[in-house]
Amino acid sequence: MSSDSGAQTVATLGEFALIDRLAEALAEVRAAAAPNLLGIGDDAAIWTPTPNTRAVITTDSLIAGIHFRLDWTTWHDLGHKALAVNLSDIAAMGARPRLATISLGLTGQERVTDLLDLYRGLGTLAAQHNVIIAGGDIVASPERLGLHLTVIGESWPEADGRLLTRDAAHPGDLLATSGHLGLAAAGLKLLLENGPVGEWASGPEGSLHHSTLDTRRSLLAHSPTGPLAHVAHDSRLTTHDYLTAHHRPEPRITYGRALVAAGVRVAMDLSDGLFGDLAKICARSKVGARIDEAALPVPASLRAQFPNDWRKLATRGGEDYELLFTALPAVIDRLRALCAAQNLPAPAIIGAILPPPASGPPITLGHADGTDEAIGGGAFDHFGGR
Amino acid sequence: MSSDSGAQTVATLGEFALIDRLAEALAEVRAAAAPNLLGIGDDAAIWTPTPNTRAVITTDSLIAGIHFRLDWTTWHDLGHKALAVNLSDIAAMGARPRLATISLGLTGQERVTDLLDLYRGLGTLAAQHNVIIAGGDIVASPERLGLHLTVIGESWPEADGRLLTRDAAHPGDLLATSGHLGLAAAGLKLLLENGPVGEWASGPEGSLHHSTLDTRRSLLAHSPTGPLAHVAHDSRLTTHDYLTAHHRPEPRITYGRALVAAGVRVAMDLSDGLFGDLAKICARSKVGARIDEAALPVPASLRAQFPNDWRKLATRGGEDYELLFTALPAVIDRLRALCAAQNLPAPAIIGAILPPPASGPPITLGHADGTDEAIGGGAFDHFGGR
Repeated sequence: MSSDSGAQTVATLGEFALIDRLAEALAEVRAAAAPNLLGIGDDAAIWTPTPNTRAVITTDSLIAGIHFRLDWTTWHDLGHKALAVNLSDIAAMGARPRLATISLGLTGQERVTDLLDLYRGLGTLAAQHNVIIAGGDIVASPERLGLHLTVIGESWPEADGRLLTRDAAHPGDLLATSGHLGLAAAGLKLLLENGPVGEWASGPEGSLHHSTLDTRRSLLAHSPTGPLAHVAHDSRLTTHDYLTAHHRPEPRITYGRALVAAGVRVAMDLSDGLFGDLAKICARSKVGARIDEAALPVPASLRAQFPNDWRKLATRGGEDYELLFTALPAVIDRLRALCAAQNLPAPAIIGAILPPPASGPPITLGHADGTDEAIGGGAFDHFGGR
Repeated sequence: MSSDSGAQTVATLGEFALIDRLAEALAEVRAAAAPNLLGIGDDAAIWTPTPNTRAVITTDSLIAGIHFRLDWTTWHDLGHKALAVNLSDIAAMGARPRLATISLGLTGQERVTDLLDLYRGLGTLAAQHNVIIAGGDIVASPERLGLHLTVIGESWPEADGRLLTRDAAHPGDLLATSGHLGLAAAGLKLLLENGPVGEWASGPEGSLHHSTLDTRRSLLAHSPTGPLAHVAHDSRLTTHDYLTAHHRPEPRITYGRALVAAGVRVAMDLSDGLFGDLAKICARSKVGARIDEAALPVPASLRAQFPNDWRKLATRGGEDYELLFTALPAVIDRLRALCAAQNLPAPAIIGAILPPPASGPPITLGHADGTDEAIGGGAFDHFGGR
């Protein structure tokens, strides 16, 4: 590597040399146990599906200025997140991820070292889940960086082809999540109100610990797999925790596997916010749902630090990437036992599935004071339509 | 459909209503025989791999202003081409395509009717090859339209897992293509020199027939699957043929299947031009290659109409999407018989695979006058690097 490579851009290095360097960055972080498939370098990547499984495919794009801001994230975190949001969809199917492809739209002005960091972030998460980065495409995207990923998975070997869908919820099912809500939205709120962390002049919330972006970078350098897997309900959450939840979501692959093992049939991942996402299950399954506000799994610390906003952060904020699922009480009991045995968080029961309402919105929120609220509105629309 | 829907844009319709409309457009053109899989509407699409096959995955992005110009193409053709270039990679693996996902980056100013045409073009080609559009993602891409497709395929049931790769060419193999070279590049040249066809004031080449873009649209409306499957070597080619080759490449899926059946092991698709692409086979297989210029499969009509450029169009132009393959002469003989039986073009033998040269470029071009030329350079680099 030449000594000036830190300032080298894509435009000076060129497309084909870049592909070689990115492949090297992936090789650095590949888990020794990960199988080597024929990947980058042919017209397509090849793999052998596991016999007697069903396969799944999902695709998700991240666009600079829309889904992320380069002045708010590290490149390593961006690589992590781009893969994580796709793996989260595989987790929500109760499947095991196997391969990913990435199409990179580059302006040409990106620094090569930054792209290597991006690939290391992506590759580190891939290696944790034995996912092969099987190939991709690099194209010019003159105005802004875009990351376009596709992930292939398959049902777990023991699952006999069973997967989790959105269309099989029934009245009588309990409604539950795999973990806490609102942390990622709290992180985004802090960023929106304060800008990049390194620029914060003073604390945005009196009680918060303020880490600088440099501090965060050094923390992440020491624990590149992310310090925040699951937080305890009574943890004292810091700015660092909220930003980590926003920048480095953890796909709940193991949790999805436990759901299938316990006999759960219905799940999705919480990407657009609880209300908007639950509305999708209601629409696909033709059911209604009731949420008990008092049962929302929001850490006490978050409630205390955002006393006016925690309900909105938890129900409309999005990007939690926890799993939302429904099942009969006996199935939830089996799941609880499995989670205890596997050191996973117990399911947080937040409500129940109801028959579809004769009219009006499918979701009812039961407030702590005993009043009910019909929940309208939907998920975030990229173009502002409804 | 409301009467003003022709002027409706993505921004006024909204993301979720658009997804419903696009799904309807796909349903219109879906072949009755195509299997219905669980596709659009869940976290991921589900399918069951065929037992005892190997699977392949490829991804290719098209960006407005880089890979296509909206003033040069119809939306229907653009949908065709976006899928065709991905299916071509599956064909080059000797595989059968099964599913596609599409991530659309939209400015928001696109007309809904245009996007429906895009999806009809995409869906028509998908239906021809029994490919399911299994899902996707729609994101905001404020400055320019981007189409990001991924296609999954699998080895043909009769192939016992055999696929075509780039790394198994051996000295003694013949080098061949599935069809003519240079037509797509001729189409691009005409567009670059004359702008949109409707704007041509007079003919760019004295002997050419000039169809207007409107004429072309009406032609395509009457034969939406594309009029140009394979042209005869002595056809009198028109502007329409060159533009069709550029705008509506046909993925050589059936030809790839025949290659596998005949025992061919090495193939790739010609997307970046013969010289650049052959260099990739040479690099992966650690061999050299010799091309006989006199044997280049360039129609007499193209040679006559582009007397100064036909060699360059055929060898460096790219986007032919014919298959380039190598095999021993006995295998080529078997293939020739298969092609005759299946009404496919006979393989065009253009040269041979040699041992790798001790130094210098791997490709030698033998000119008609008996002189040899060492071929340097490579494929098109999106960022101008080398």
